[in-house]
Amino acid sequence: MKIEVVENVLKYNKDQAEKNRKIFDDNNIFVINILSSPGAGETSLIIETIKRMKGVKIGVIEGDISSTYDAEKIKDYTDDVVQINTRGSCHLNATMVKQALDKMELKNLDMIIIENVGNLICPVGFYLGEDYKIVLSSVNEGDDKPIKYPPVFIKSDICLLNKIDLLKISDFDMKLFTKKLEELNPNMTKFFISCKSGEGLENWIGWLEERLK
Amino acid sequence: MKIEVVENVLKYNKDQAEKNRKIFDDNNIFVINILSSPGAGETSLIIETIKRMKGVKIGVIEGDISSTYDAEKIKDYTDDVVQINTRGSCHLNATMVKQALDKMELKNLDMIIIENVGNLICPVGFYLGEDYKIVLSSVNEGDDKPIKYPPVFIKSDICLLNKIDLLKISDFDMKLFTKKLEELNPNMTKFFISCKSGEGLENWIGWLEERLK
Repeated sequence: MKIEVVENVLKYNKDQAEKNRKIFDDNNIFVINILSSPGAGETSLIIETIKRMKGVKIGVIEGDISSTYDAEKIKDYTDDVVQINTRGSCHLNATMVKQALDKMELKNLDMIIIENVGNLICPVGFYLGEDYKIVLSSVNEGDDKPIKYPPVFIKSDICLLNKIDLLKISDFDMKLFTKKLEELNPNMTKFFISCKSGEGLENWIGWLEERLK
Repeated sequence: MKIEVVENVLKYNKDQAEKNRKIFDDNNIFVINILSSPGAGETSLIIETIKRMKGVKIGVIEGDISSTYDAEKIKDYTDDVVQINTRGSCHLNATMVKQALDKMELKNLDMIIIENVGNLICPVGFYLGEDYKIVLSSVNEGDDKPIKYPPVFIKSDICLLNKIDLLKISDFDMKLFTKKLEELNPNMTKFFISCKSGEGLENWIGWLEERLK
């Protein structure tokens, strides 16, 4: 038995993403799409970012394969958080994001943060209409992530390295990590941060504020 | 434009996996398939396991989307390590494993450890012919992984929680973690380990040795 599938899932996704892009432009909303491994600290990053950007109206789209666990944590910090449950699917696509946008008060927002499903591989190919793709890595994952998962580092505009408070008790080789990043993506902007101690977050927030001007 | 695809990729995979299973049975090889997030410590676990199981001949199949980085690390500890590069694919399948088996000296082996691609979602549905599926989580990923990624914890036989040396500097809630595991999979065997300090590894090794008797 055979089934027919539309050949170009990515083409279809791209068309949908362009529609999202138009919605963002029409509403003057700046959008970032954050990709990371499970446990790299995406939710903490979003909370610390919202806390530091007072006066900026930030909406959040939370992607998970199940549960509303992260959205519950974030709703103390913003009125506009929408959870997408992908029902097992390993990445967000543009259609899912459009469905989330339909539930948001877009006219009230300056910025949307999309937390993609925790997965360094599958979300990479799916443009959602965002301004920037951000890869969030963390010290405890090890310095070899750019070696083992090149595409996400090649396709992202920004790399945030989180949990730098753990550098002192880890054998993370910062030279190896940054050298490999530069080989893969020489134009990448890098921020070294700790959402726990707050270190480095001012540079990240400064970068976002520049984009919102 | 449309293409035709064979409907049941999983059915095809299962048939191939059964053939792998027969190869393992014929050669009396015990096989585990380890699933984890990037950076949970799979390669360290494999090295520490090999070091502690002297006299047991262990082969390793390393799955990565690119590079031979992990295989290079492991080849100091076993003569029989094969790297599978999935060329971007987010999980191993049974056909890839069969291709790796063709390169191994099966008659010499007692056990094979398969390190799947670092991904908590996609590898779950793909049986490779293994005796046991093992999920490796780690303290620094946070206590919410069973909440956010239920399928891998439901489908695995064993959960290893690595990096317990970090418990003292983390807010990881062990009660929450184990309670959720028990809800998802009441029969799951759990080991709490640190590949860095060695703590808890004797229980894990003891469990493996029981299986090899």
